[in-house]
Amino acid sequence: MSVEPWVADGEYREGAVDLLGILAYGALAAFERLAEDARTAPTLSDKVHGATMAALQIAHFERVRDRLAELDSDVLDAMQPFHEAFNAYHAHTKPKDWLEGLVWTYVGDGFAADFYREVAAFVDADTRALVHQVLSDQGHEAYVIERVRSAIAADRKVAGRLALWGRRLVGEALSQAQRVAADRDALTSLLTGTSDRPGMDLAAISRMFTRLVENHTRRMQELGLQA
Amino acid sequence: MSVEPWVADGEYREGAVDLLGILAYGALAAFERLAEDARTAPTLSDKVHGATMAALQIAHFERVRDRLAELDSDVLDAMQPFHEAFNAYHAHTKPKDWLEGLVWTYVGDGFAADFYREVAAFVDADTRALVHQVLSDQGHEAYVIERVRSAIAADRKVAGRLALWGRRLVGEALSQAQRVAADRDALTSLLTGTSDRPGMDLAAISRMFTRLVENHTRRMQELGLQA
Repeated sequence: MSVEPWVADGEYREGAVDLLGILAYGALAAFERLAEDARTAPTLSDKVHGATMAALQIAHFERVRDRLAELDSDVLDAMQPFHEAFNAYHAHTKPKDWLEGLVWTYVGDGFAADFYREVAAFVDADTRALVHQVLSDQGHEAYVIERVRSAIAADRKVAGRLALWGRRLVGEALSQAQRVAADRDALTSLLTGTSDRPGMDLAAISRMFTRLVENHTRRMQELGLQA
Repeated sequence: MSVEPWVADGEYREGAVDLLGILAYGALAAFERLAEDARTAPTLSDKVHGATMAALQIAHFERVRDRLAELDSDVLDAMQPFHEAFNAYHAHTKPKDWLEGLVWTYVGDGFAADFYREVAAFVDADTRALVHQVLSDQGHEAYVIERVRSAIAADRKVAGRLALWGRRLVGEALSQAQRVAADRDALTSLLTGTSDRPGMDLAAISRMFTRLVENHTRRMQELGLQA
């Protein structure tokens, strides 16, 4: 049960719908990436893994859709404002092979998930629980780490290429996030709060970015890559 | 509960594992096709439909995998013998656009599903129930019919191209089915039966092919296409 007094506020609701719209689009985008990984997987077992992870994204998508319906919002409408940003991100980050696809999901989704969790600290308890549920790892991280590490072990040159790739992914993600933030006032106001609603001041936002970058560095290290 | 006396028979079990292996591979192949349809979908709503249907195939895949585990068989091992036939089918039937992709799923999967149901008449009750469950339509047929019909209404030329495409799909499916039948004696013996186990004689097999072709013709007509 949500008991926060500001939940009924119009701007808050708009921001929450934006957050859920991004999450829904993110799940659909991750589905596409994982399905493509499955298609290009080197073995049948990798194909099954990719396909299973892709299907899980649709289960997440459906949960977010149902929560949006509770907020009287249609998932397609909620996703629409983020179409361009996601399209641009995808167009600028096309993996050249299966390994780059794996890193795409791990690094890109990891970074996005961290950011969503940061924002979720300032939404109502129901929405927050949903965000955490949808973003929980289901064994994919360990899988990607194992696959990338063994590819590097087999060919050291892979490490340099994938390290560059990881940096490019984060750069693109930040650039699209900025675009979205500039466009969607209700969403940014989730983070900054209002006089009635908790939020981050500038110093807190800067600390948040530090956390995001630190987590990214840790993820790259887990892959055996220089951030 | 299965009570058929021949369930413990080694050749029967091998045939049933083959059937489930094909079903698992078929679900994975349909997943890939539907995910690709989602990727190339003209609208966000079509994308969501395709992705949802793709995820459903993985739910089917997981059911078949669990049934195979009950039969002490690993799904990857059960799928392996059909890798070449599915690969060849996919390589020879690459849709040129989204509409051809829709017809691929509807016509190809429809034909395959009819055939699996025919074979399922001769397997144990547990496996038969699973086959019917996995093959039940979940609203995708009505969706494809609506989309293809409205594409034809918008441009009559589409009908001729898709009619040719549908014929090619069935031709390829039959050719791969023949290849599999020639390779997998246990599977064909599911259909033909043994002295202890019911099956089809040659006349019944020929009637089955007539049914398969009639159903295909009906499906093409529902799309508004000449079979």
